[in-house]
Amino acid sequence: MSSPERSAPETRADDVLEIEDAILDLDREKRCGFSEVIYGQSKTAEAILKIALAQCQYGIDVFATRVDAQKAQFVLPEIKRVCADAYYNAVARTLRAPCGSVSTRENRGKIAILTAGTSDLPVAEEARETALWTGADAILIQDVGVAGPQRLRAKLPLIEDADVVVVVAGMEGALPSVVGGYVSAPIIAVPTSVGYGASFQGLAALLGMLNSCASNVTVVNIDAGFKAGYVAGLIAKRVRDAVARAKEL
Amino acid sequence: MSSPERSAPETRADDVLEIEDAILDLDREKRCGFSEVIYGQSKTAEAILKIALAQCQYGIDVFATRVDAQKAQFVLPEIKRVCADAYYNAVARTLRAPCGSVSTRENRGKIAILTAGTSDLPVAEEARETALWTGADAILIQDVGVAGPQRLRAKLPLIEDADVVVVVAGMEGALPSVVGGYVSAPIIAVPTSVGYGASFQGLAALLGMLNSCASNVTVVNIDAGFKAGYVAGLIAKRVRDAVARAKEL
Amino acid sequence: MSSPERSAPETRADDVLEIEDAILDLDREKRCGFSEVIYGQSKTAEAILKIALAQCQYGIDVFATRVDAQKAQFVLPEIKRVCADAYYNAVARTLRAPCGSVSTRENRGKIAILTAGTSDLPVAEEARETALWTGADAILIQDVGVAGPQRLRAKLPLIEDADVVVVVAGMEGALPSVVGGYVSAPIIAVPTSVGYGASFQGLAALLGMLNSCASNVTVVNIDAGFKAGYVAGLIAKRVRDAVARAKEL
Amino acid sequence: MSSPERSAPETRADDVLEIEDAILDLDREKRCGFSEVIYGQSKTAEAILKIALAQCQYGIDVFATRVDAQKAQFVLPEIKRVCADAYYNAVARTLRAPCGSVSTRENRGKIAILTAGTSDLPVAEEARETALWTGADAILIQDVGVAGPQRLRAKLPLIEDADVVVVVAGMEGALPSVVGGYVSAPIIAVPTSVGYGASFQGLAALLGMLNSCASNVTVVNIDAGFKAGYVAGLIAKRVRDAVARAKEL
Amino acid sequence: MSSPERSAPETRADDVLEIEDAILDLDREKRCGFSEVIYGQSKTAEAILKIALAQCQYGIDVFATRVDAQKAQFVLPEIKRVCADAYYNAVARTLRAPCGSVSTRENRGKIAILTAGTSDLPVAEEARETALWTGADAILIQDVGVAGPQRLRAKLPLIEDADVVVVVAGMEGALPSVVGGYVSAPIIAVPTSVGYGASFQGLAALLGMLNSCASNVTVVNIDAGFKAGYVAGLIAKRVRDAVARAKEL
Amino acid sequence: MSSPERSAPETRADDVLEIEDAILDLDREKRCGFSEVIYGQSKTAEAILKIALAQCQYGIDVFATRVDAQKAQFVLPEIKRVCADAYYNAVARTLRAPCGSVSTRENRGKIAILTAGTSDLPVAEEARETALWTGADAILIQDVGVAGPQRLRAKLPLIEDADVVVVVAGMEGALPSVVGGYVSAPIIAVPTSVGYGASFQGLAALLGMLNSCASNVTVVNIDAGFKAGYVAGLIAKRVRDAVARAKEL
Amino acid sequence: MSSPERSAPETRADDVLEIEDAILDLDREKRCGFSEVIYGQSKTAEAILKIALAQCQYGIDVFATRVDAQKAQFVLPEIKRVCADAYYNAVARTLRAPCGSVSTRENRGKIAILTAGTSDLPVAEEARETALWTGADAILIQDVGVAGPQRLRAKLPLIEDADVVVVVAGMEGALPSVVGGYVSAPIIAVPTSVGYGASFQGLAALLGMLNSCASNVTVVNIDAGFKAGYVAGLIAKRVRDAVARAKEL
Amino acid sequence: MSSPERSAPETRADDVLEIEDAILDLDREKRCGFSEVIYGQSKTAEAILKIALAQCQYGIDVFATRVDAQKAQFVLPEIKRVCADAYYNAVARTLRAPCGSVSTRENRGKIAILTAGTSDLPVAEEARETALWTGADAILIQDVGVAGPQRLRAKLPLIEDADVVVVVAGMEGALPSVVGGYVSAPIIAVPTSVGYGASFQGLAALLGMLNSCASNVTVVNIDAGFKAGYVAGLIAKRVRDAVARAKEL
Repeated sequence: MSSPERSAPETRADDVLEIEDAILDLDREKRCGFSEVIYGQSKTAEAILKIALAQCQYGIDVFATRVDAQKAQFVLPEIKRVCADAYYNAVARTLRAPCGSVSTRENRGKIAILTAGTSDLPVAEEARETALWTGADAILIQDVGVAGPQRLRAKLPLIEDADVVVVVAGMEGALPSVVGGYVSAPIIAVPTSVGYGASFQGLAALLGMLNSCASNVTVVNIDAGFKAGYVAGLIAKRVRDAVARAKEL
Repeated sequence: MSSPERSAPETRADDVLEIEDAILDLDREKRCGFSEVIYGQSKTAEAILKIALAQCQYGIDVFATRVDAQKAQFVLPEIKRVCADAYYNAVARTLRAPCGSVSTRENRGKIAILTAGTSDLPVAEEARETALWTGADAILIQDVGVAGPQRLRAKLPLIEDADVVVVVAGMEGALPSVVGGYVSAPIIAVPTSVGYGASFQGLAALLGMLNSCASNVTVVNIDAGFKAGYVAGLIAKRVRDAVARAKEL
Repeated sequence: MSSPERSAPETRADDVLEIEDAILDLDREKRCGFSEVIYGQSKTAEAILKIALAQCQYGIDVFATRVDAQKAQFVLPEIKRVCADAYYNAVARTLRAPCGSVSTRENRGKIAILTAGTSDLPVAEEARETALWTGADAILIQDVGVAGPQRLRAKLPLIEDADVVVVVAGMEGALPSVVGGYVSAPIIAVPTSVGYGASFQGLAALLGMLNSCASNVTVVNIDAGFKAGYVAGLIAKRVRDAVARAKEL
Repeated sequence: MSSPERSAPETRADDVLEIEDAILDLDREKRCGFSEVIYGQSKTAEAILKIALAQCQYGIDVFATRVDAQKAQFVLPEIKRVCADAYYNAVARTLRAPCGSVSTRENRGKIAILTAGTSDLPVAEEARETALWTGADAILIQDVGVAGPQRLRAKLPLIEDADVVVVVAGMEGALPSVVGGYVSAPIIAVPTSVGYGASFQGLAALLGMLNSCASNVTVVNIDAGFKAGYVAGLIAKRVRDAVARAKEL
Repeated sequence: MSSPERSAPETRADDVLEIEDAILDLDREKRCGFSEVIYGQSKTAEAILKIALAQCQYGIDVFATRVDAQKAQFVLPEIKRVCADAYYNAVARTLRAPCGSVSTRENRGKIAILTAGTSDLPVAEEARETALWTGADAILIQDVGVAGPQRLRAKLPLIEDADVVVVVAGMEGALPSVVGGYVSAPIIAVPTSVGYGASFQGLAALLGMLNSCASNVTVVNIDAGFKAGYVAGLIAKRVRDAVARAKEL
Repeated sequence: MSSPERSAPETRADDVLEIEDAILDLDREKRCGFSEVIYGQSKTAEAILKIALAQCQYGIDVFATRVDAQKAQFVLPEIKRVCADAYYNAVARTLRAPCGSVSTRENRGKIAILTAGTSDLPVAEEARETALWTGADAILIQDVGVAGPQRLRAKLPLIEDADVVVVVAGMEGALPSVVGGYVSAPIIAVPTSVGYGASFQGLAALLGMLNSCASNVTVVNIDAGFKAGYVAGLIAKRVRDAVARAKEL
Repeated sequence: MSSPERSAPETRADDVLEIEDAILDLDREKRCGFSEVIYGQSKTAEAILKIALAQCQYGIDVFATRVDAQKAQFVLPEIKRVCADAYYNAVARTLRAPCGSVSTRENRGKIAILTAGTSDLPVAEEARETALWTGADAILIQDVGVAGPQRLRAKLPLIEDADVVVVVAGMEGALPSVVGGYVSAPIIAVPTSVGYGASFQGLAALLGMLNSCASNVTVVNIDAGFKAGYVAGLIAKRVRDAVARAKEL
Repeated sequence: MSSPERSAPETRADDVLEIEDAILDLDREKRCGFSEVIYGQSKTAEAILKIALAQCQYGIDVFATRVDAQKAQFVLPEIKRVCADAYYNAVARTLRAPCGSVSTRENRGKIAILTAGTSDLPVAEEARETALWTGADAILIQDVGVAGPQRLRAKLPLIEDADVVVVVAGMEGALPSVVGGYVSAPIIAVPTSVGYGASFQGLAALLGMLNSCASNVTVVNIDAGFKAGYVAGLIAKRVRDAVARAKEL
């Protein structure tokens, strides 16, 4: 929105722009806190590119999730032409093009993202990329599953420092409960489909997290790294906005 | 435990005090942000009373959930002897005795609690009582289910004003998604067991909320009004603590 | 079966014709309102072609669903020889050859087909093609999911005009409830397998729709675009037949 | 609310009236085709009565479902004071007070309601009462389950005559498929919780109906007699409204 | 009996012969009514061949199920060397080598095998091959699903004549109930994984059949054509053995 | 209906007689092998009595299942007036009045009914009463669950002698598989809801039986003692009818 | 077996004694390590008493589980006449009469039984009573759920000392995983039905425990305190028997 | 111990060594009884190799599970350079390099591993390799499923001799119950995903085993051969350690 020479496309009523098949929600940042994210799973590389370019044109910070390597190979070079800092995170399967004025989003709000095991990394990385895109600080603490309790305790100082904690775990999904016993920040638990047999593709972890005896745990969908990072970012934003308002007074 | 002078009881290593069968976690407020809550479901009236009195003695703000009317009838009069402001919310089935120094918790952080239908009220009331106990402002907005869209829209100004929104809904559990399309605050969705047939005691609402297409929705267990109110309170506390620190500087 | 003179084939008792493995139900239109549809999923391209040609021969309007591109490539050119207007809808995966006297079916009954997201399009297209085949008018309104409420409201005039509304949605399947709050037409909800994790291949959307708090919502199987289009077409046909009878009087 | 002069109560913006805890949706008939129905399950007898009296006052045809005998015993005599024709159907557990101008709703649209077995009767009666309330003709055909095929065939003439068919069945829920093979009207299938063991409180019947090989079957929630009657009534209303408009021309 | 020197292999205690990894149960026919069947799914082509050749050597009528085309291509030519009548049914995926003295098994007991749709054929063919192997007569009646009631009625004379009826159906699995309403023979219902969405790979059909309101229906596992054919064969054998004994007297 | 002379009542087309709410299927014995059974669960004592008396009047052997003690106390004395041999089996919860010509049903076909544990007895007794009503011999062998293998082996001679074996078991439902390894008769497995926790009201036993590695096992619904006894009786009847025909020749 | 003056009852082949309905397995201790346990759930007080008295007569250490208070009130006084040390544990709902020569079972093998919360106590007590009956030492460590991590760590010395650890937990069932990270003994995890909503009566805890990332965890049925105590006792017995044999050498 | 300079790598606090992404838990053997196992499923061949080499360097007996053939082909030759006895078990998909001082683990504790059918072999082999790695004796007894009861009885002497019995079974999972009826050792039941249809990928077997009526059965996850072998090894170790201590006295 900040680039004046991008005023070409006509705006429609209530700021919704239809790009052939997709509809661009230009007003979303004002309404929802952050601009629209491209869910790449069900879109062709061409569609992703088209939306991303349109967002760039309007000064929106582009962020796409569930973009497989093949699509990224097609989209990234094209995006880089208009946004040199664009990059693809192959583990997270996210693509980001910081076309927007990110400078106003730096260094405020701290999010700790934990994984129980190395297999949970892709989901955690998606959460981390999303959290970074929301403007928050995000650190990743890996492999602190409950079977090795000393590992978690060694990292506690880092975790206690966070405004929000995202805990990513598969199998029995016990880590959020354990972390919840140590820290007072809100915890967003992300069950993953890591496991086999009676894990039922993440169902065991999901049920475990929903039944957590720790009071500070809320849950998102299985493998929903994006949503965890998004809500964590929202909370961090709440904190920094409130502080900003307080300082203005 | 019956000693009237509050400072009497010896403290044990790591501040855990065993009261016959139950263990009192005195250090919890420091570690977890809030003091311990009494889960009344599986406790006798006598056990609830004993813990409550011990908490009062240590200046802890007593809060008990899932206390049925019969237990309350036994416990409340006794608690009122040491804490005149104690009260029982029969809809929420909560009992509260503000023995602690509640003055430091007032007027900071705003939580909106919505219900889809009137049957969701007990869960919403539990969330509201919990949120109040955490020191936050909490307003209740009833009966704004998706089948009457104009009702929700009429209340939007109240909702948009909140730091966190708790949405309580049974049946198909669609309300959090719809609210998520309107507001930018984090939403904590509480599925309820309201419904019949294929609602499977709240499973349908739970699955619906976990799959919400709105990015700002996290979920707690079915009928878990307490947890929703608790996490909402935590987020509100984060905001006010950050503001307090900012103002100190 | 290839005989050019249409009246040739002998008719069997109760108008059932066995074509090698398949049985052709010639009397179905009279009994069921519409002629028989070819379910392509479990049939070879050869079998589809054979039935389609036989139907053409009897003046039946051919309609085949779940026909993948490879089968279509084999069948379509052959069908076009006897029915030049035959076409394949690659998104809907349907093949249609309007051999029948479609002229008597035009312009009566209006069906609105909505999708929550772009991934729901194939199911919606199947519904639309089916509805058209039943002789109804059918319009497609895309991407009006609940996370962007202003999108749906912008399209309401189009939707309110319909005799029946088909709502296609995956994930939490909340859209039918929301639409049900706005319009008075019967709504046929189609859950789709769009989603991941706790969507359980459409189960979450299915349960959500079955528990819809809107009174005007009935549900069909997951991804059952055909059935939704078919029932919508039946209702539209009821209306136009009643009107026709009324006008005759 | 008890004021005798009907025009008294102030109307609020968008015609929503809050009666203490409940909100009365006065505009619903215009928006949704029919006025609001009182879902008695989660309401006290006092609440049901209050809403019913208010509806009567506004000339709304009162209809309440899931009203148990005890509540009815309290509510009915009071309602009868203002609406002498009010009655309670103990099998359907519905209460109706035809305060509205029902004369405009008569004799249009025919709905056949079938049950597989006698245990399905309460659900079928709820559907029938609802259908009658919508202004349609509704006949009940009992005990035509698939294990006695000659029973169904004997009733076919009655069924074929209907604009919509509601089929109520528990256990394996096969009846809608079988009826669907005989008639061309849209069928609304209602699974019931009748059965035991692997019927899983109606799940078997529900799944059976969703997977019906008959193309004209849509499904509502388990035991959802009300919803089936409501949608059947909507379709019948569509037909009669269209005919009325056709005749006006 | 192509191997004349039957006594060559050493016999072990209780007539169990270990062929490297597999164990050959030579006494099974006496104990269980029929000789052992080779379950090909989890065996290599080499293992199938080895067991089959050993069975041939002992005069056992070889029957192998779940043998894919590739394995059959390897095994069949080798088996044909010792049993010229060996054959592979590609639809049923069964391989049979009638090495045993089949003459004593002919023409006794009649089994009717029905399918609801053409997609159920592989399972029905497996049942038919199994029934034939048990020495019973078996006829296949295809495509008599409940959506076309006249098709089933046309075939009733054939079905009523059977000693046992095997009914193979996917989707809602309603056919066994309907057939059960017409015939008095025991019915063995075989749910198939045919269907999509809420069929959940045959679960809907399975539950439907278990809840059948027809009293003469028992059920086997999803897609278990073999087991249905086997039990049907056992019942037919019971009948013919009893008759034989009666005639001897 | 009250007419004392048995031949009085007018017969209707296709021999279906409507007794107020219920319909009497007089032709059922010819069509289905056995006369109609009264399912008592969902009927009032009055309704059971009315049907029973009507059946007696027509010379039908009355058999009612799921009749609780209270209903029996009402019905039995009345039935005894017209059929002195009527009796109630309180464990099986069945009521029988052998009004029919049972003499033609004696001593033919042998059914063994096994239970895994004493808690399975009510279901087994229902099966036994049903089998007796079908005219078969039926013996009950209790408490031979797999945890005490010597118990089963001690009873094998009795079991091997049977034409059909009904195996009733809860918990893991392993008994049918084990029995299936010993005998060659068809086995009808009846899962019971006996158990707790992960037995899920009989689901574990049901799944176990459906997956039985023994080829001669078919399954009926959870707690479906009646259906097991009925099908066992049908098979026994097949055998005796065939023998009778053979002897006639 | 050891008391010579109790030779009155006749012994049957293979030491199985039928007491009216129940069968007494006298040889079980030799075969299974421990004598037979009376499962009281499905037995009348009379049946429990009869078996218990018979066991006493044969010098068997009587142990009955799932005996509710009412049954105990009937059985206990009678048992005390022949075994003065008999007692009833009302929390565990177990009844024990140490008629056998318990002296040979003392002080060998140590079992630690942990609970996550106070609601898990009945199941833990059942495990403890069972373990004691097997002759092992058993200590109970309560209320060490994961939400209070310091509680568990304080008890670790007691736990590390055990030969086997039984961990009883409801809700998310995370405790066994956490304990598994601290100790090297085999852990027997017992999910309980404690919890609500998505705990689904213990399913969440069960799945969590089955998916435990700790390698030393095996699982028993929901609420199966008896089985956990039994297997723990078996392992302890293995150890003491091996030591006894080693010392003999 | 092929790496002579053991002290080279720097040790970190609490003996946890981070190797790039993975963390090496050097202290685990002391804490957990056995050293760390490499779970190969989610690791690249390179990662497996790196950890294995590091373990070798520290004298840890390397054991990796879920290593597919392709990864093994890469890893094994490299490991063999430092540990000549390293080998890959292609059926178990395990890789072992006995770098540690295995001499102290020989000949103590006997584990019997049973399979119901040949398809269960991979899981059983994983259990066997794991048990061997723990230092126990382990014998494999194949193909003793319940459908062939004489097979199991023939092997009983071998089984009765074991300290722990691991029973691996798919389909209905009945074998552990049956074995539990014969032997007094603790039984660890491993459900496998062998089966089809209503086996639901091992769920039927899992539920069956959890509900086992045999008191000595505990259960692990579906296909969890490793965990079964591990716990069996732990129990065997308990026995031999106790004996060793007893002998020292």
